[in-house]
Amino acid sequence: MPCANLCYNSPMKVTLFDTTLRDGAQTEGISFSLEDKLKIAKLLDELGVDYIEGGWPGSNPKDIEFFKAIKGVNLQHAKVCAFSSTRKANVKVTDDKNIKTLIEAETPAVSIFGKCWDFHVTDALKTTLEENLEMIKDTVAYCKKAGREVIFDAEHFFDGFKNNKTYALKCLKAAEEAGADVMCLCDTNGGSLSFEVQEIIEEVKQFTKAPLGIHAHNDSECAVSISGMAVHCGCAQVQGTINGYGERCGNANLCSIIPLLKLKMKMDCISDEQLKHLTELSRRVAEIANLPQSAHQPFVGRSAFAHKGGIHVSAVLKHPSTYEHVKPELVGNARRVTVSELSGISNLIFKAKEYGVDLDKNTPEVKELVKKLKQLENEGYQFEEGEASFELLMRRSLGVYRPIFELKEYSIEILQKSEENFVVKAQMKIKVAGKVYESEDVGDGPINALDGALRKVLEGIYPKIKEVKLTDYKVRVLDSKAGTAARVRVIIESRDEGRSWGTVGVSTNVVEASYLALVDSLEYMLIKG
Amino acid sequence: MPCANLCYNSPMKVTLFDTTLRDGAQTEGISFSLEDKLKIAKLLDELGVDYIEGGWPGSNPKDIEFFKAIKGVNLQHAKVCAFSSTRKANVKVTDDKNIKTLIEAETPAVSIFGKCWDFHVTDALKTTLEENLEMIKDTVAYCKKAGREVIFDAEHFFDGFKNNKTYALKCLKAAEEAGADVMCLCDTNGGSLSFEVQEIIEEVKQFTKAPLGIHAHNDSECAVSISGMAVHCGCAQVQGTINGYGERCGNANLCSIIPLLKLKMKMDCISDEQLKHLTELSRRVAEIANLPQSAHQPFVGRSAFAHKGGIHVSAVLKHPSTYEHVKPELVGNARRVTVSELSGISNLIFKAKEYGVDLDKNTPEVKELVKKLKQLENEGYQFEEGEASFELLMRRSLGVYRPIFELKEYSIEILQKSEENFVVKAQMKIKVAGKVYESEDVGDGPINALDGALRKVLEGIYPKIKEVKLTDYKVRVLDSKAGTAARVRVIIESRDEGRSWGTVGVSTNVVEASYLALVDSLEYMLIKG
Repeated sequence: MPCANLCYNSPMKVTLFDTTLRDGAQTEGISFSLEDKLKIAKLLDELGVDYIEGGWPGSNPKDIEFFKAIKGVNLQHAKVCAFSSTRKANVKVTDDKNIKTLIEAETPAVSIFGKCWDFHVTDALKTTLEENLEMIKDTVAYCKKAGREVIFDAEHFFDGFKNNKTYALKCLKAAEEAGADVMCLCDTNGGSLSFEVQEIIEEVKQFTKAPLGIHAHNDSECAVSISGMAVHCGCAQVQGTINGYGERCGNANLCSIIPLLKLKMKMDCISDEQLKHLTELSRRVAEIANLPQSAHQPFVGRSAFAHKGGIHVSAVLKHPSTYEHVKPELVGNARRVTVSELSGISNLIFKAKEYGVDLDKNTPEVKELVKKLKQLENEGYQFEEGEASFELLMRRSLGVYRPIFELKEYSIEILQKSEENFVVKAQMKIKVAGKVYESEDVGDGPINALDGALRKVLEGIYPKIKEVKLTDYKVRVLDSKAGTAARVRVIIESRDEGRSWGTVGVSTNVVEASYLALVDSLEYMLIKG
Repeated sequence: MPCANLCYNSPMKVTLFDTTLRDGAQTEGISFSLEDKLKIAKLLDELGVDYIEGGWPGSNPKDIEFFKAIKGVNLQHAKVCAFSSTRKANVKVTDDKNIKTLIEAETPAVSIFGKCWDFHVTDALKTTLEENLEMIKDTVAYCKKAGREVIFDAEHFFDGFKNNKTYALKCLKAAEEAGADVMCLCDTNGGSLSFEVQEIIEEVKQFTKAPLGIHAHNDSECAVSISGMAVHCGCAQVQGTINGYGERCGNANLCSIIPLLKLKMKMDCISDEQLKHLTELSRRVAEIANLPQSAHQPFVGRSAFAHKGGIHVSAVLKHPSTYEHVKPELVGNARRVTVSELSGISNLIFKAKEYGVDLDKNTPEVKELVKKLKQLENEGYQFEEGEASFELLMRRSLGVYRPIFELKEYSIEILQKSEENFVVKAQMKIKVAGKVYESEDVGDGPINALDGALRKVLEGIYPKIKEVKLTDYKVRVLDSKAGTAARVRVIIESRDEGRSWGTVGVSTNVVEASYLALVDSLEYMLIKG
């Protein structure tokens, strides 16, 4: 069923309105500096979004600084937009400090949010329904007169419509008559479902011919779907954030909405070339926000095109479209096959190809490798997140690899004298290029001390080891019923300039498991050069 | 707009089909043990789901073990379901090993997936369209004859329908005629949008009156919305997983779908009381999977009802519905506002009451305790699963508790001579009832050795310590970016005859963190008598 049949009443052109810097900044755990905001704005402009909402100048002095600084940035396409509420009740718009600051931000576009839910007007704003309509009218008209493009954010529109349809529509009419360029219907509490949004937008379209937009929140896990439905019903603007950042459960995720509009609904928004940078953009914004990108994030996540089950893998190798809804390269992502107990020889062969190793499934080495793999997995190894360890294992099994260093022995001493007062010392002997070295170090814990002792030797011989940073360290207890005698799996993620890799170690001794993963990490970096 | 107007064509009763243990187990990073699966099955039964899909016995020996073990578990409501493909092409159903194993699993229900996309039949299965219909028919009929309730999973139904509607419908017909109890329409690749699903289901309903189900994947971030739409259009069964676990971007998230069905669409599924345990269930399953629950997860996440300062907070305090789409307590979650000293104290008083301790919020001890608690939480302590440690902390702070034993010092030595050959020795001095004892032990790892040494002393004095079994041991890395110097939180679950309790320890040294949790565990048992 081609989209052309379904989207008969959709506009050809949809504008993208990004609010990562305003609504996204409300995410618990996010705190953007001015530099962060400018970096993200540049990335958004390169991606091709049409509007960048930079903040609420009237509520936050930091946001005023952003609007000053962004004037010095040469944006190619995006319009900067400043956000504000309507004027205060019973205050002249020309006397409203908030609106004054908004205009002083000197942005080409402004977004004005006005209450559309009668209950909010009377019980939160504490004013009359009539005055609220005047507030909308005055503010929109004033901003238009000041030469701004005006996006009217109809706050709580869907909840308002469900409770008092007539009043919600009156609010839209007030903004339309005052000259608003777009009327954006907001599902502020994120409580609406796609069929509700569909029915409501169809009714709104009977009432106004002005361009409509959609601004959804994810409290019902429906924000992306609602945004798609709204465009399907004729909305011409979608508001959202990168990675779905936002208060509570987040805003509608533009990293999903953009490919959905482009690839599935065939809408005109960003270019094919820009779409190919979506995955990179998502990861860079996550880095700036200092939050891990979810591996399972649609389209752009590390696992979004990862195949684990044996059946899926063998089918995907023949025809990717059997288990992939879009081609990963269109959004700048990549197909991955993971190695697990659910997988067979085809996963292994695919994986080996990634590492430049050609495997023939009928050779004894490959059969031996599969056997070894199963045995290690029974012991609790898991290579999905420890792919570098898997590559080392494969190279060792196939005899195409000589260890760069060899651990002879290590010892650790932990002395605890009183609470929060302990000394941890590690000693080791390792052999590098035929010579045995002794080393020791102290650390915050046994693994930190071992890491220190190992690096003391290796950094002397291979200075580039200094570049390796451990970026993640995870411990999973395998047979937890065994209590303190349980086996543990340790996964370490490492990074140097431009690369990252994961390694894994398993043991009943958490120190040993960590050490195995640590050694693999450094060894992998050295053989990769 | 009350749902009654919208859902006129929806069934009153919707069955919930959970596939956390089968499709959810495909998540990258998840590897459930048999024990894990049994624990989750019990939790799902308590939640009130109707079907628990336990695995694919024909593809995985571990799954066969699950179906054996689950027979010994007294489930109150849920039916266990085993999964399988249809019989192989050109093989008699009675000769098909996969189907034989399926029947041997002796489950009341089975789910049979059959291809409904012509392209998959010819290019992945490499058989004829006609033979595929026979495979569906034979397999469903055979399972019905064996007394099973049969759910037909129409694999790739939506993609199949878009490409060859006639054939996709023929596949449904084949299953229906063979006696399938439910025909579950699968969006296997997760590529469908809500308005497509709506149009397609409306067409399917013209064609068959058999009960329909929906099985959605989240590759377009629309799985929850699609599931809601399908029920709105008349589907009587929803398949999904806890926390949306599943391959690639995951399956439809039951933790969102259930409240959506119950609270918004007023469907009959689990009870109000069961719904109140949803948040707890989501967190416990995440713990078992050893994955952090996303703070921003709708309904059940820690931030789902969290309000940051300003307008939202003051409005929410007056009228929660201004910025909350449902009441958090209905799903067992809680509203969070920027934590004030006062709300901290009321929580504490509430908690203390649970332990039979009456606190007065105006005493200096209580204020001191709040301060201490905040400091510990900043360090990474979390008492939700370590309530015994919390109780000890409270008793210590209030001076109503005298430590039964006191650790003077300990030391650990780990000697690693070669791979898989290491010796771990622990030595310690502890003071019990005024006397200092020395003890030592060896173990599989440092924590096991410490446990042994500690027990050698305590068991001599308090023989009932022998009854304490450690039933779970978990390690969570807190600031993973710090690499091997990261702080870790260790949670230990212990059990004796008839009781179980959890304790927690935090340190940069995993041995120390484990030791703190271990000592709390034994101490708690002793003071409880």
